[in-house]
Amino acid sequence: MAKRKIILDCDPGHDDAVAMLMAYAHPSIDLLGITIVAGNQTLAKTVRNGLNVAQLLEMNVKIYPGMPQPLVRDQVVAGNVHGTTGLDGPVFGELNRQPATKNGVQFIIDTLLASDGDITLVPTGPMTNIASAMRAEPLIIPKIKEIVMMGGAYGTGNFTPSAEFNIYADPEAANVVFRSGVPIVMMGLDLTNQTVCTPDIIDRMEAVGNKAGKLFGDMLRFTLKTQYEEFGLEAGPIHDATTIGYLIDPDLFETQDEFVVVDINRGPCYGRTVCDENNVLKQQPNAKVGQKINHDGFFDLVEDCIRLYS
Amino acid sequence: MAKRKIILDCDPGHDDAVAMLMAYAHPSIDLLGITIVAGNQTLAKTVRNGLNVAQLLEMNVKIYPGMPQPLVRDQVVAGNVHGTTGLDGPVFGELNRQPATKNGVQFIIDTLLASDGDITLVPTGPMTNIASAMRAEPLIIPKIKEIVMMGGAYGTGNFTPSAEFNIYADPEAANVVFRSGVPIVMMGLDLTNQTVCTPDIIDRMEAVGNKAGKLFGDMLRFTLKTQYEEFGLEAGPIHDATTIGYLIDPDLFETQDEFVVVDINRGPCYGRTVCDENNVLKQQPNAKVGQKINHDGFFDLVEDCIRLYS
Amino acid sequence: MAKRKIILDCDPGHDDAVAMLMAYAHPSIDLLGITIVAGNQTLAKTVRNGLNVAQLLEMNVKIYPGMPQPLVRDQVVAGNVHGTTGLDGPVFGELNRQPATKNGVQFIIDTLLASDGDITLVPTGPMTNIASAMRAEPLIIPKIKEIVMMGGAYGTGNFTPSAEFNIYADPEAANVVFRSGVPIVMMGLDLTNQTVCTPDIIDRMEAVGNKAGKLFGDMLRFTLKTQYEEFGLEAGPIHDATTIGYLIDPDLFETQDEFVVVDINRGPCYGRTVCDENNVLKQQPNAKVGQKINHDGFFDLVEDCIRLYS
Amino acid sequence: MAKRKIILDCDPGHDDAVAMLMAYAHPSIDLLGITIVAGNQTLAKTVRNGLNVAQLLEMNVKIYPGMPQPLVRDQVVAGNVHGTTGLDGPVFGELNRQPATKNGVQFIIDTLLASDGDITLVPTGPMTNIASAMRAEPLIIPKIKEIVMMGGAYGTGNFTPSAEFNIYADPEAANVVFRSGVPIVMMGLDLTNQTVCTPDIIDRMEAVGNKAGKLFGDMLRFTLKTQYEEFGLEAGPIHDATTIGYLIDPDLFETQDEFVVVDINRGPCYGRTVCDENNVLKQQPNAKVGQKINHDGFFDLVEDCIRLYS
Repeated sequence: MAKRKIILDCDPGHDDAVAMLMAYAHPSIDLLGITIVAGNQTLAKTVRNGLNVAQLLEMNVKIYPGMPQPLVRDQVVAGNVHGTTGLDGPVFGELNRQPATKNGVQFIIDTLLASDGDITLVPTGPMTNIASAMRAEPLIIPKIKEIVMMGGAYGTGNFTPSAEFNIYADPEAANVVFRSGVPIVMMGLDLTNQTVCTPDIIDRMEAVGNKAGKLFGDMLRFTLKTQYEEFGLEAGPIHDATTIGYLIDPDLFETQDEFVVVDINRGPCYGRTVCDENNVLKQQPNAKVGQKINHDGFFDLVEDCIRLYS
Repeated sequence: MAKRKIILDCDPGHDDAVAMLMAYAHPSIDLLGITIVAGNQTLAKTVRNGLNVAQLLEMNVKIYPGMPQPLVRDQVVAGNVHGTTGLDGPVFGELNRQPATKNGVQFIIDTLLASDGDITLVPTGPMTNIASAMRAEPLIIPKIKEIVMMGGAYGTGNFTPSAEFNIYADPEAANVVFRSGVPIVMMGLDLTNQTVCTPDIIDRMEAVGNKAGKLFGDMLRFTLKTQYEEFGLEAGPIHDATTIGYLIDPDLFETQDEFVVVDINRGPCYGRTVCDENNVLKQQPNAKVGQKINHDGFFDLVEDCIRLYS
Repeated sequence: MAKRKIILDCDPGHDDAVAMLMAYAHPSIDLLGITIVAGNQTLAKTVRNGLNVAQLLEMNVKIYPGMPQPLVRDQVVAGNVHGTTGLDGPVFGELNRQPATKNGVQFIIDTLLASDGDITLVPTGPMTNIASAMRAEPLIIPKIKEIVMMGGAYGTGNFTPSAEFNIYADPEAANVVFRSGVPIVMMGLDLTNQTVCTPDIIDRMEAVGNKAGKLFGDMLRFTLKTQYEEFGLEAGPIHDATTIGYLIDPDLFETQDEFVVVDINRGPCYGRTVCDENNVLKQQPNAKVGQKINHDGFFDLVEDCIRLYS
Repeated sequence: MAKRKIILDCDPGHDDAVAMLMAYAHPSIDLLGITIVAGNQTLAKTVRNGLNVAQLLEMNVKIYPGMPQPLVRDQVVAGNVHGTTGLDGPVFGELNRQPATKNGVQFIIDTLLASDGDITLVPTGPMTNIASAMRAEPLIIPKIKEIVMMGGAYGTGNFTPSAEFNIYADPEAANVVFRSGVPIVMMGLDLTNQTVCTPDIIDRMEAVGNKAGKLFGDMLRFTLKTQYEEFGLEAGPIHDATTIGYLIDPDLFETQDEFVVVDINRGPCYGRTVCDENNVLKQQPNAKVGQKINHDGFFDLVEDCIRLYS
């Protein structure tokens, strides 16, 4: 079977780093490039974090910095969850890598335009890069095979009662993407909160005994604490990694076809992904909304990916 | 123990009728009056339905018509669920009763002003009457002991993906009530959808063999069908009856203290009850939000109430 | 010619008092009653002011207190313009009058229902009473001959850059009234700011030498100062009096038929009266929007009314 | 005196073409480049129009195509005013020119980053290019000397009762620009409608007898008709040309320092430039808002510019 070509668009970020780790290593994924966006932290920091992870794991993949600011709203970052650097926890060596000179938004545009319509976008941060690309070059829209994204919630949000961070950090961008007509797979908090990495899971990954396992442990021990303190979660979920998990083995996931719209009114639901679970609006579904994950199967997959590193 | 004094403010409606049935019969409740509001149907119809139920069950209680229109928005009714009359299903005899001449809003104001602060309001329809009373006479606000209401959802709505009907039918009124400072118990769809009346439950209530049991059956066999067709529910829940159940035996209910605000922006979340489950806004809670109901205990209580009729 | 039957619905207020003075005295107006609403100050104060003016001018007319709070929003008052009492300036004697026991909203409903459709409503404050009456008893709507109101602006507002005080103090009420289908004459700031009472005008009215002239002077000397300080106006306009002026002699006014909608979005235009001057929306006009007043003719009329007092 | 360095960011468009004509010819302006945005028509058409005008007038200046879509909203164009091509009226010869390969947004970013802070941006269409540049590279913001823009209105709009076309076509972009902190000069409809080109003005410019005068006439005879039909204007204003007029001779303009915010709520004021004329919000002004233009002086300047062509 052909490899799945993807561009990973992320804001590392602990769980973004797990997504990078999995996407690069797994043989069923062809990682064309990593574009970076501001989100969990400022762009300078998320780029640095991406480079650090790529260097540590010796990834042969380019990292393209994209948008440092959301489309319209004032910037918010998630220092409360991911720390001052955006990837607190691990200690990285001296950074020798440089980001690519091409801008991330331009990389998305150029790569899609040159493609045969077989590329999937995988945003695991605010969707500023993708919305910017769509608006700067609408011809890319029919070229996108699918968008498999982490963000939103049909239940309770995390940064506000209504909104999940990735969407809240750029609701207008998410609104553009959900209205674009591209098929979307949405991994929202409802599903991703099922991936909390309790100490036994962290121990298991570290027990693999390689640098990928160590990185996983160093990162997840940090969010163990912040996710509990901020959101009362038992431990830190690896939200973003579910997107790559889905691409490798969709059978691990239950999804439901729904019409989803992002609220951009500046009231208490600003940034909410409104999911029409019961199809009361009688609209054509635009997203597969993740409902349930096969917990054990998913973490087996994570471990498989970690074992692929030397 | 003293009886709990209440004013039932409803828009009958099938499940409103069950609330009436329970509130009137149960010895722990002192039903001071029933105020009617437009909602499930127009005011003329909801008043007529209330009178029909009261006459059938020989209730000695006055029925006060209140607001025929929401505060601000255009009227919507729920004919899809409750039928053309608003209480399709049962066949009532000739109606001999008259509504009270005093307006329902005025009844609420006068009764509260004359009280010692020991009266609970129990809205099971749009909260237009209560919001109107609060705005017309703010002195009633500190007199209200508690508001135990049916409406809203922290999960998925029913009339829109975001909003439950009672709130959606008058979001501005709900917004006024939730901002009033009165302690609120909110029975939203999340909890009330746990009260679907499957055929076995209907059979059981009818088997009591009195007119109350027959009324229950005649009504719930109707919504069995509409709730399935409209919302994919297994059968018709008796949403509104949970409020009376809570007043009789709060131990049957799990609630959580939360800050709740009603979205009145005219976007996709118009009429949403935004519940801050994780207290990310660090606001003082203004509501006990219903989470879980003891299903068997609750239906035992419903049957108890039905048996209290001759 | 038949007298024009009106209910004056006001929040006295300096310019409201001039409207009262004119409406009561002029032979072409049949003043059926005065309803009071919170606005320029709290209801207790605006009622007291209305009674004081009525007593001073020996008006034989009942004063009905209405809504003390706006429909939905938090209350705002205009102490900056009208002072602590809401009618600072004049010194009134001991107040011997009482308000009517019937509520103002009820008076509007009862009077309209009993009428032949020949009554005009003249709101010169927030339209809370009128919107409440419309929503409590929609049957009054086709009974209203016309609504001649002071409020709004198609140009710059006063309490916000977008909104004039009467509308801003209850945008939802104004929204209800403008959507009601009743023909409206709107005297907005654009027109009413043409009625500033410069010292020469004040002198002229005082020179009439009666108590009405003295009241006019005592009041307008106060707002002379506040209107300058707050809004940079040369002196205090008598906004509200334009409504009565229009009813007495519409030829003094230029109006344009326009479709008007009140913005109730909680952004920077909350409470704006959006007037479709060029009919770009191709909607049926719902209001005659005041453009220009015959300045000299109008003040002649004011003086005429003052002279009608002993 | 040093020439004023500008980037003209436009969506030609008839009045944009007059702005191009003036900016290129006048010795006090150093036109660094022309960036094009979708607006009056789609980007393909506005680029073509810009090239046609530049070729006809033998301008030695590069034309950089920018954003083909607004940041967030669905695209609207102004075919009703500017015709199918976006520049109906003149007949152009075969087009031999090509647009620059660099994207307009990138040109703005690169040029500003390389500058000494002495460049003024002159947007005469939707501000999508400029907002995109600001969000993609916030470091340009302190480098912008001033933004002299055509758009908005403090009075009545044209495309809606509240909004002028350039802002309405991308309210979110305008919102970003007005919140950026860059000093802004806003030429809104209030001022630009004072520049209607009645037949005598058209005759006068044509009488210059060169190709620039002929172009002016061919264009303005077209909008003469559409502006009358759409907005009831006596003839077509040359809105956009006021920006260049201001840069050449600001003494021809009366402006007032005001705080301006763009309403991005999706209600009846979507896209309104809310101008705090009376400073009731007590905010720091962020714009000089055009009030009045010296009509004769301005058209003398237009003629001067036309005469500068051979």
